[in-house]
Amino acid sequence: MRYELYYWSGIQGRGEFIRLALEDAGAEYIDVARERGDEAMQAFLQGQCEGALPFAPPFLQAGHLLIAQTAAILDYLALPLGLVPEGEARRIYATQLQLTVADLVAEIHDSHHPIASSLYYEDQRAEAQRRAADLRQTRLPKYLGYFEQVLARADGRHALGAHSYVDLSLFQLMAGLDYAFPRAMSRLRQDVPRLCALAEEVAQRPRVAAYLASPRRVPFNEQGIFRHYPALDDPA
Amino acid sequence: MRYELYYWSGIQGRGEFIRLALEDAGAEYIDVARERGDEAMQAFLQGQCEGALPFAPPFLQAGHLLIAQTAAILDYLALPLGLVPEGEARRIYATQLQLTVADLVAEIHDSHHPIASSLYYEDQRAEAQRRAADLRQTRLPKYLGYFEQVLARADGRHALGAHSYVDLSLFQLMAGLDYAFPRAMSRLRQDVPRLCALAEEVAQRPRVAAYLASPRRVPFNEQGIFRHYPALDDPA
Repeated sequence: MRYELYYWSGIQGRGEFIRLALEDAGAEYIDVARERGDEAMQAFLQGQCEGALPFAPPFLQAGHLLIAQTAAILDYLALPLGLVPEGEARRIYATQLQLTVADLVAEIHDSHHPIASSLYYEDQRAEAQRRAADLRQTRLPKYLGYFEQVLARADGRHALGAHSYVDLSLFQLMAGLDYAFPRAMSRLRQDVPRLCALAEEVAQRPRVAAYLASPRRVPFNEQGIFRHYPALDDPA
Repeated sequence: MRYELYYWSGIQGRGEFIRLALEDAGAEYIDVARERGDEAMQAFLQGQCEGALPFAPPFLQAGHLLIAQTAAILDYLALPLGLVPEGEARRIYATQLQLTVADLVAEIHDSHHPIASSLYYEDQRAEAQRRAADLRQTRLPKYLGYFEQVLARADGRHALGAHSYVDLSLFQLMAGLDYAFPRAMSRLRQDVPRLCALAEEVAQRPRVAAYLASPRRVPFNEQGIFRHYPALDDPA
Protein backbone atom coordinates (compact mmCIF):
# COMPACT_ATOMS: atom_id res chain seq x y z
CA MET A 1 0.00 0.00 0.00
CA ARG A 2 1.30 3.44 -0.91
CA TYR A 3 -0.10 5.94 1.62
CA GLU A 4 -0.79 9.58 0.86
CA LEU A 5 -0.33 11.90 3.81
CA TYR A 6 -1.86 15.38 3.70
CA TYR A 7 -0.41 17.94 6.09
CA TRP A 8 0.91 21.50 6.06
CA SER A 9 4.24 21.50 4.25
CA GLY A 10 5.96 24.15 6.38
CA ILE A 11 5.61 22.72 9.89
CA GLN A 12 6.01 19.52 11.88
CA GLY A 13 2.77 20.06 13.77
CA ARG A 14 0.38 17.18 14.34
CA GLY A 15 1.37 15.61 11.03
CA GLU A 16 4.81 14.80 12.40
CA PHE A 17 3.40 11.99 14.54
CA ILE A 18 2.23 10.31 11.31
CA ARG A 19 5.45 11.06 9.42
CA LEU A 20 7.48 9.44 12.22
CA ALA A 21 5.33 6.30 12.16
CA LEU A 22 5.59 5.96 8.37
CA GLU A 23 9.34 6.62 8.41
CA ASP A 24 10.11 4.29 11.32
CA ALA A 25 8.21 1.48 9.59
CA GLY A 26 9.86 2.15 6.23
CA ALA A 27 6.41 2.53 4.68
CA GLU A 28 5.90 3.76 1.13
CA TYR A 29 4.21 7.16 1.28
CA ILE A 30 3.88 10.55 -0.35
CA ASP A 31 3.86 13.70 1.76
CA VAL A 32 1.45 15.26 -0.71
CA ALA A 33 1.54 18.95 0.26
CA ARG A 34 5.35 18.93 0.35
CA GLU A 35 5.34 17.72 -3.26
CA ARG A 36 2.37 19.62 -4.67
CA GLY A 37 1.80 22.50 -2.25
CA ASP A 38 -0.68 23.07 0.56
CA GLU A 39 -3.45 23.82 -1.92
CA ALA A 40 -3.55 20.07 -2.71
CA MET A 41 -5.50 19.70 0.56
CA GLN A 42 -8.26 22.15 -0.31
CA ALA A 43 -10.57 19.87 -2.32
CA PHE A 44 -10.75 17.45 0.64
CA LEU A 45 -11.36 20.19 3.21
CA GLN A 46 -14.03 21.79 1.04
CA GLY A 47 -15.91 18.51 0.77
CA GLN A 48 -15.30 18.01 -2.93
CA CYS A 49 -14.10 14.42 -2.41
CA GLU A 50 -16.07 11.28 -1.62
CA GLY A 51 -16.12 9.65 1.80
CA ALA A 52 -15.05 10.99 5.14
CA LEU A 53 -14.90 14.77 5.53
CA PRO A 54 -11.80 16.00 7.39
CA PHE A 55 -12.13 19.01 9.69
CA ALA A 56 -8.41 19.79 9.39
CA PRO A 57 -5.09 18.21 8.40
CA PRO A 58 -3.52 15.76 8.97
CA PHE A 59 -5.48 13.26 6.93
CA LEU A 60 -4.40 10.08 5.20
CA GLN A 61 -5.54 8.43 2.01
CA ALA A 62 -5.12 4.66 2.26
CA GLY A 63 -6.67 2.95 -0.74
CA HIS A 64 -10.36 3.88 -0.66
CA LEU A 65 -10.19 5.08 2.96
CA LEU A 66 -9.73 8.71 3.94
CA ILE A 67 -8.94 9.15 7.65
CA ALA A 68 -8.48 12.35 9.63
CA GLN A 69 -7.41 12.95 13.26
CA THR A 70 -3.89 11.95 14.25
CA ALA A 71 -4.83 9.27 16.79
CA ALA A 72 -7.33 7.64 14.39
CA ILE A 73 -4.71 7.55 11.62
CA LEU A 74 -2.11 6.01 13.93
CA ASP A 75 -4.55 3.39 15.19
CA TYR A 76 -5.34 2.48 11.59
CA LEU A 77 -1.65 2.27 10.57
CA ALA A 78 -0.49 0.47 13.72
CA LEU A 79 -1.28 -3.10 12.66
CA PRO A 80 -0.08 -3.04 9.01
CA LEU A 81 3.06 -1.10 9.97
CA GLY A 82 3.82 -3.35 12.96
CA LEU A 83 3.75 -0.39 15.32
CA VAL A 84 1.69 -1.85 18.15
CA PRO A 85 2.20 -5.07 20.16
CA GLU A 86 -0.36 -7.85 19.76
CA GLY A 87 -3.65 -7.94 21.63
CA GLU A 88 -6.75 -5.81 21.97
CA ALA A 89 -5.79 -4.44 25.38
CA ARG A 90 -2.50 -3.00 24.14
CA ARG A 91 -3.99 -1.63 20.95
CA ILE A 92 -6.61 0.23 23.01
CA TYR A 93 -3.97 1.39 25.51
CA ALA A 94 -1.92 2.75 22.60
CA THR A 95 -4.88 4.87 21.48
CA GLN A 96 -5.50 6.05 25.03
CA LEU A 97 -1.87 7.13 25.42
CA GLN A 98 -1.79 8.80 21.99
CA LEU A 99 -4.94 10.75 22.92
CA THR A 100 -3.23 11.90 26.10
CA VAL A 101 -0.25 13.05 24.02
CA ALA A 102 -2.77 14.89 21.82
CA ASP A 103 -4.30 16.61 24.85
CA LEU A 104 -0.88 17.83 25.91
CA VAL A 105 -0.06 18.95 22.36
CA ALA A 106 -3.22 21.08 22.36
CA GLU A 107 -2.18 22.62 25.69
CA ILE A 108 1.30 23.35 24.33
CA HIS A 109 -0.23 25.05 21.28
CA ASP A 110 -2.42 27.16 23.51
CA SER A 111 0.56 28.28 25.59
CA HIS A 112 1.45 30.65 22.71
CA HIS A 113 -2.17 31.07 21.53
CA PRO A 114 -4.31 31.20 24.69
CA ILE A 115 -6.91 33.57 23.22
CA ALA A 116 -7.36 32.68 19.54
CA SER A 117 -5.56 30.64 16.86
CA SER A 118 -6.68 33.29 14.39
CA LEU A 119 -4.67 36.03 16.11
CA TYR A 120 -0.88 36.46 16.03
CA TYR A 121 1.16 35.49 19.08
CA GLU A 122 2.11 39.17 19.32
CA ASP A 123 -1.56 40.00 19.90
CA GLN A 124 -1.84 37.70 22.94
CA ARG A 125 1.63 37.95 24.44
CA ALA A 126 0.63 38.89 27.98
CA GLU A 127 -1.93 36.09 28.18
CA ALA A 128 0.61 33.67 26.70
CA GLN A 129 3.07 34.50 29.46
CA ARG A 130 0.48 33.61 32.11
CA ARG A 131 -0.61 30.43 30.37
CA ALA A 132 2.94 29.25 29.58
CA ALA A 133 3.92 29.73 33.23
CA ASP A 134 1.11 27.39 34.24
CA LEU A 135 2.12 24.92 31.53
CA ARG A 136 5.73 24.82 32.75
CA GLN A 137 4.94 24.79 36.46
CA THR A 138 1.81 22.64 36.64
CA ARG A 139 0.84 20.84 33.44
CA LEU A 140 4.22 19.61 32.13
CA PRO A 141 5.26 18.07 35.47
CA LYS A 142 1.86 16.36 35.64
CA TYR A 143 1.88 14.99 32.08
CA LEU A 144 5.58 14.05 31.95
CA GLY A 145 5.29 12.44 35.38
CA TYR A 146 2.34 10.45 34.08
CA PHE A 147 4.23 9.16 31.04
CA GLU A 148 7.23 8.32 33.25
CA GLN A 149 4.89 6.23 35.40
CA VAL A 150 3.48 4.53 32.27
CA LEU A 151 7.04 3.49 31.33
CA ALA A 152 7.82 2.33 34.87
CA ARG A 153 4.72 0.11 34.88
CA ALA A 154 5.71 -1.50 31.56
CA ASP A 155 9.31 -2.63 30.94
CA GLY A 156 10.80 0.77 31.83
CA ARG A 157 11.79 1.45 28.21
CA HIS A 158 8.60 1.26 26.13
CA ALA A 159 5.12 2.60 26.86
CA LEU A 160 3.56 -0.74 25.90
CA GLY A 161 6.39 -3.07 26.94
CA ALA A 162 7.55 -3.31 23.30
CA HIS A 163 8.18 -0.81 20.50
CA SER A 164 5.10 1.07 19.28
CA TYR A 165 4.04 4.33 17.69
CA VAL A 166 3.43 5.66 21.20
CA ASP A 167 7.20 5.63 21.81
CA LEU A 168 7.70 7.58 18.57
CA SER A 169 5.14 10.12 19.78
CA LEU A 170 6.82 10.43 23.18
CA PHE A 171 10.13 11.05 21.40
CA GLN A 172 8.50 13.81 19.33
CA LEU A 173 6.98 15.34 22.45
CA MET A 174 10.34 15.46 24.23
CA ALA A 175 12.10 16.83 21.12
CA GLY A 176 9.49 19.56 20.73
CA LEU A 177 9.58 20.51 24.40
CA ASP A 178 13.39 20.67 24.36
CA TYR A 179 13.15 23.06 21.41
CA ALA A 180 10.39 25.24 22.85
CA PHE A 181 11.32 25.33 26.54
CA PRO A 182 15.05 24.49 26.91
CA ARG A 183 15.36 26.10 30.34
CA ALA A 184 12.24 24.47 31.78
CA MET A 185 13.19 21.12 30.28
CA SER A 186 16.67 21.13 31.83
CA ARG A 187 14.82 21.28 35.14
CA LEU A 188 11.96 18.88 34.27
CA ARG A 189 14.16 16.21 32.67
CA GLN A 190 15.67 15.41 36.07
CA ASP A 191 12.44 13.79 37.21
CA VAL A 192 11.77 11.70 34.11
CA PRO A 193 14.89 9.60 33.41
CA ARG A 194 12.98 6.83 31.60
CA LEU A 195 11.33 9.29 29.24
CA CYS A 196 14.75 10.86 28.47
CA ALA A 197 16.27 7.45 27.78
CA LEU A 198 13.35 6.46 25.55
CA ALA A 199 13.73 9.67 23.52
CA GLU A 200 17.43 8.96 23.01
CA GLU A 201 16.80 5.36 22.00
CA VAL A 202 14.12 6.32 19.49
CA ALA A 203 16.39 8.96 17.93
CA GLN A 204 18.98 6.24 17.32
CA ARG A 205 16.66 3.81 15.55
CA PRO A 206 18.23 3.56 12.08
CA ARG A 207 15.23 4.72 10.04
CA VAL A 208 14.37 7.47 12.52
CA ALA A 209 17.97 8.70 12.59
CA ALA A 210 18.08 8.71 8.77
CA TYR A 211 14.80 10.63 8.65
CA LEU A 212 15.89 13.22 11.23
CA ALA A 213 19.08 13.85 9.23
CA SER A 214 17.20 14.15 5.92
CA PRO A 215 15.55 17.20 4.31
CA ARG A 216 12.20 15.39 4.82
CA ARG A 217 12.30 16.45 8.48
CA VAL A 218 10.97 20.04 8.55
CA PRO A 219 13.00 21.96 11.18
CA PHE A 220 11.14 23.21 14.26
CA ASN A 221 10.05 26.80 13.71
CA GLU A 222 7.77 29.52 15.04
CA GLN A 223 4.76 28.53 12.92
CA GLY A 224 4.27 25.09 14.44
CA ILE A 225 3.07 23.77 17.78
CA PHE A 226 6.44 23.81 19.53
CA ARG A 227 7.70 27.39 19.32
CA HIS A 228 10.78 28.81 20.97
CA TYR A 229 9.78 32.14 22.48
CA PRO A 230 12.28 32.81 25.30
CA ALA A 231 9.69 34.96 27.11
CA LEU A 232 7.54 31.83 27.54
CA ASP A 233 10.34 29.68 29.00
CA ASP A 234 11.60 29.60 32.60
CA PRO A 235 13.38 32.85 33.54
CA ALA A 236 17.14 32.74 32.75
CA MET B 1 -21.27 -7.51 30.58
CA ARG B 2 -21.80 -5.05 33.44
CA TYR B 3 -19.70 -1.97 32.79
CA GLU B 4 -18.24 0.23 35.51
CA LEU B 5 -17.93 3.88 34.56
CA TYR B 6 -15.67 6.16 36.60
CA TYR B 7 -16.30 9.88 36.32
CA TRP B 8 -16.76 12.90 38.58
CA SER B 9 -20.13 12.61 40.27
CA GLY B 10 -21.03 16.31 40.26
CA ILE B 11 -20.75 17.19 36.57
CA GLN B 12 -21.73 16.00 33.11
CA GLY B 13 -18.30 16.79 31.65
CA ARG B 14 -16.60 14.36 29.30
CA GLY B 15 -18.18 11.43 31.12
CA GLU B 16 -21.59 12.42 29.78
CA PHE B 17 -20.70 11.18 26.31
CA ILE B 18 -20.21 7.70 27.80
CA ARG B 19 -23.30 7.90 30.00
CA LEU B 20 -25.43 8.77 26.97
CA ALA B 21 -24.08 5.82 24.97
CA LEU B 22 -24.69 3.37 27.83
CA GLU B 23 -28.18 4.77 28.48
CA ASP B 24 -29.23 4.86 24.83
CA ALA B 25 -28.17 1.23 24.40
CA GLY B 26 -29.88 0.13 27.62
CA ALA B 27 -26.55 -1.29 28.82
CA GLU B 28 -26.07 -2.55 32.35
CA TYR B 29 -23.63 -0.24 34.13
CA ILE B 30 -22.66 1.33 37.42
CA ASP B 31 -21.74 5.01 37.60
CA VAL B 32 -19.24 4.20 40.32
CA ALA B 33 -18.41 7.62 41.75
CA ARG B 34 -22.10 8.55 41.96
CA GLU B 35 -22.64 5.45 44.12
CA ARG B 36 -19.44 5.40 46.15
CA GLY B 37 -18.03 8.94 45.88
CA ASP B 38 -15.29 10.48 43.77
CA GLU B 39 -12.62 8.94 46.01
CA ALA B 40 -13.43 5.57 44.39
CA MET B 41 -11.38 6.79 41.40
CA GLN B 42 -8.20 7.54 43.34
CA ALA B 43 -6.65 4.05 43.43
CA PHE B 44 -6.80 3.89 39.61
CA LEU B 45 -5.38 7.39 39.12
CA GLN B 46 -2.59 6.72 41.61
CA GLY B 47 -1.53 3.62 39.74
CA GLN B 48 -2.52 1.15 42.44
CA CYS B 49 -4.50 -1.01 39.99
CA GLU B 50 -3.24 -3.43 37.34
CA GLY B 51 -3.29 -2.69 33.63
CA ALA B 52 -3.76 0.60 31.83
CA LEU B 53 -3.01 3.78 33.78
CA PRO B 54 -5.60 6.54 33.25
CA PHE B 55 -4.41 10.16 33.16
CA ALA B 56 -7.86 11.44 34.15
CA PRO B 57 -11.51 10.40 34.26
CA PRO B 58 -13.56 9.19 32.48
CA PHE B 59 -12.39 5.60 32.48
CA LEU B 60 -14.30 2.37 32.06
CA GLN B 61 -13.81 -1.06 33.55
CA ALA B 62 -15.09 -3.72 31.16
CA GLY B 63 -14.17 -7.18 32.42
CA HIS B 64 -10.37 -7.26 32.61
CA LEU B 65 -10.00 -4.14 30.44
CA LEU B 66 -9.54 -0.65 31.84
CA ILE B 67 -9.93 2.06 29.19
CA ALA B 68 -9.50 5.82 29.53
CA GLN B 69 -10.09 8.67 27.06
CA THR B 70 -13.67 9.30 25.94
CA ALA B 71 -13.18 8.51 22.25
CA ALA B 72 -11.31 5.28 23.01
CA ILE B 73 -14.09 4.17 25.38
CA LEU B 74 -16.79 4.94 22.81
CA ASP B 75 -14.92 3.10 20.06
CA TYR B 76 -14.64 0.09 22.35
CA LEU B 77 -18.34 0.18 23.32
CA ALA B 78 -19.65 0.92 19.83
CA LEU B 79 -19.77 -2.64 18.50
CA PRO B 80 -21.21 -4.49 21.53
CA LEU B 81 -23.74 -1.71 22.16
CA GLY B 82 -24.75 -1.50 18.50
CA LEU B 83 -23.83 2.18 18.36
CA VAL B 84 -21.96 2.25 15.06
CA PRO B 85 -23.03 1.08 11.58
CA GLU B 86 -21.20 -1.90 10.06
CA GLY B 87 -17.90 -1.64 8.25
CA GLU B 88 -14.36 -0.49 9.02
CA ALA B 89 -14.74 2.81 7.16
CA ARG B 90 -17.70 3.94 9.25
CA ARG B 91 -16.16 2.77 12.53
CA ILE B 92 -13.05 4.82 11.76
CA TYR B 93 -15.14 7.80 10.65
CA ALA B 94 -17.05 7.61 13.94
CA THR B 95 -13.79 7.90 15.86
CA GLN B 96 -12.64 10.77 13.66
CA LEU B 97 -15.88 12.68 14.29
CA GLN B 98 -15.85 11.95 18.02
CA LEU B 99 -12.27 13.28 18.20
CA THR B 100 -13.43 16.45 16.47
CA VAL B 101 -16.22 16.79 19.04
CA ALA B 102 -13.51 16.32 21.71
CA ASP B 103 -11.40 19.09 20.20
CA LEU B 104 -14.36 21.46 20.32
CA VAL B 105 -15.18 20.39 23.90
CA ALA B 106 -11.61 21.32 24.92
CA GLU B 107 -12.01 24.72 23.24
CA ILE B 108 -15.32 25.27 25.03
CA HIS B 109 -13.69 24.42 28.36
CA ASP B 110 -10.89 26.87 27.68
CA SER B 111 -13.37 29.66 26.90
CA HIS B 112 -13.91 29.97 30.68
CA HIS B 113 -10.39 28.77 31.59
CA PRO B 114 -8.04 30.25 28.97
CA ILE B 115 -5.09 30.61 31.36
CA ALA B 116 -5.14 27.64 33.75
CA SER B 117 -7.56 24.90 34.83
CA SER B 118 -6.04 25.20 38.30
CA LEU B 119 -7.25 28.82 38.70
CA TYR B 120 -10.81 29.95 39.29
CA TYR B 121 -12.79 31.49 36.43
CA GLU B 122 -12.85 34.67 38.50
CA ASP B 123 -9.05 34.84 38.25
CA GLN B 124 -9.07 34.80 34.43
CA ARG B 125 -12.26 36.69 33.65
CA ALA B 126 -10.80 39.28 31.28
CA GLU B 127 -8.93 36.64 29.26
CA ALA B 128 -12.08 34.49 29.22
CA GLN B 129 -14.06 37.33 27.67
CA ARG B 130 -11.55 37.62 24.82
CA ARG B 131 -11.37 33.89 24.25
CA ALA B 132 -15.14 33.33 24.47
CA ALA B 133 -15.71 36.07 21.90
CA ASP B 134 -13.44 34.23 19.47
CA LEU B 135 -15.20 30.95 20.25
CA ARG B 136 -18.63 32.44 19.49
CA GLN B 137 -17.57 34.42 16.43
CA THR B 138 -15.02 32.13 14.78
CA ARG B 139 -14.74 28.65 16.21
CA LEU B 140 -18.41 27.70 16.79
CA PRO B 141 -19.51 28.71 13.27
CA LYS B 142 -16.59 26.71 11.86
CA TYR B 143 -17.20 23.55 13.92
CA LEU B 144 -21.01 23.61 13.73
CA GLY B 145 -20.84 24.32 10.01
CA TYR B 146 -18.52 21.34 9.64
CA PHE B 147 -20.90 18.98 11.46
CA GLU B 148 -23.83 20.33 9.42
CA GLN B 149 -21.88 19.45 6.28
CA VAL B 150 -21.14 15.96 7.66
CA LEU B 151 -24.90 15.42 8.07
CA ALA B 152 -25.66 16.80 4.60
CA ARG B 153 -23.16 14.39 3.03
CA ALA B 154 -24.73 11.40 4.82
CA ASP B 155 -28.55 10.99 4.93
CA GLY B 156 -29.15 14.48 6.35
CA ARG B 157 -30.21 13.07 9.73
CA HIS B 158 -27.32 10.97 11.04
CA ALA B 159 -23.59 11.62 10.97
CA LEU B 160 -22.91 8.12 9.64
CA GLY B 161 -26.12 7.60 7.65
CA ALA B 162 -27.58 5.52 10.51
CA HIS B 163 -27.82 5.92 14.28
CA SER B 164 -24.50 5.95 16.15
CA TYR B 165 -22.84 7.29 19.27
CA VAL B 166 -21.69 10.26 17.20
CA ASP B 167 -25.31 11.45 16.99
CA LEU B 168 -25.60 11.16 20.78
CA SER B 169 -22.43 13.24 21.13
CA LEU B 170 -23.73 15.89 18.71
CA PHE B 171 -26.94 16.07 20.76
CA GLN B 172 -24.88 16.60 23.92
CA LEU B 173 -22.82 19.27 22.20
CA MET B 174 -25.91 21.20 21.12
CA ALA B 175 -27.54 20.82 24.56
CA GLY B 176 -24.42 22.09 26.29
CA LEU B 177 -24.00 25.03 23.93
CA ASP B 178 -27.66 26.00 24.35
CA TYR B 179 -27.10 26.03 28.11
CA ALA B 180 -23.82 27.94 28.04
CA PHE B 181 -24.42 30.43 25.22
CA PRO B 182 -28.19 30.84 24.70
CA ARG B 183 -27.87 34.19 22.92
CA ALA B 184 -25.10 33.08 20.58
CA MET B 185 -26.91 29.82 19.85
CA SER B 186 -30.16 31.53 18.88
CA ARG B 187 -28.06 33.20 16.17
CA LEU B 188 -25.91 30.18 15.23
CA ARG B 189 -28.77 27.68 15.08
CA GLN B 190 -30.17 29.40 12.01
CA ASP B 191 -27.31 28.09 9.88
CA VAL B 192 -27.40 24.47 11.09
CA PRO B 193 -30.96 23.17 10.63
CA ARG B 194 -29.89 19.51 10.28
CA LEU B 195 -27.90 19.65 13.51
CA CYS B 196 -30.91 21.17 15.31
CA ALA B 197 -33.23 18.47 13.97
CA LEU B 198 -30.78 15.72 14.94
CA ALA B 199 -30.57 17.08 18.50
CA GLU B 200 -34.37 17.07 18.78
CA GLU B 201 -34.66 13.55 17.40
CA VAL B 202 -32.03 12.19 19.79
CA ALA B 203 -33.77 13.82 22.77
CA GLN B 204 -36.94 11.93 21.83
CA ARG B 205 -35.36 8.49 21.65
CA PRO B 206 -37.22 6.59 24.40
CA ARG B 207 -34.22 5.58 26.49
CA VAL B 208 -32.54 8.99 26.08
CA ALA B 209 -35.77 10.81 27.04
CA ALA B 210 -36.14 8.58 30.11
CA TYR B 211 -32.53 9.23 31.09
CA LEU B 212 -32.80 13.01 30.64
CA ALA B 213 -35.90 13.05 32.87
CA SER B 214 -34.26 10.89 35.55
CA PRO B 215 -32.08 11.89 38.52
CA ARG B 216 -29.21 10.05 36.80
CA ARG B 217 -28.76 13.06 34.50
CA VAL B 218 -26.67 15.57 36.46
CA PRO B 219 -27.98 19.06 35.66
CA PHE B 220 -25.67 21.45 33.78
CA ASN B 221 -23.82 23.63 36.28
CA GLU B 222 -20.87 25.99 36.65
CA GLN B 223 -18.36 23.28 37.53
CA GLY B 224 -18.56 21.42 34.22
CA ILE B 225 -17.45 22.10 30.67
CA PHE B 226 -20.57 23.96 29.55
CA ARG B 227 -20.98 26.89 31.94
CA HIS B 228 -23.50 29.67 31.70
CA TYR B 229 -21.66 32.91 32.39
CA PRO B 230 -23.72 35.67 30.72
CA ALA B 231 -20.57 37.81 30.33
CA LEU B 232 -19.17 35.16 27.97
CA ASP B 233 -22.26 35.00 25.74
CA ASP B 234 -23.24 37.37 22.90
CA PRO B 235 -24.14 40.86 24.20
CA ALA B 236 -27.86 41.17 25.09
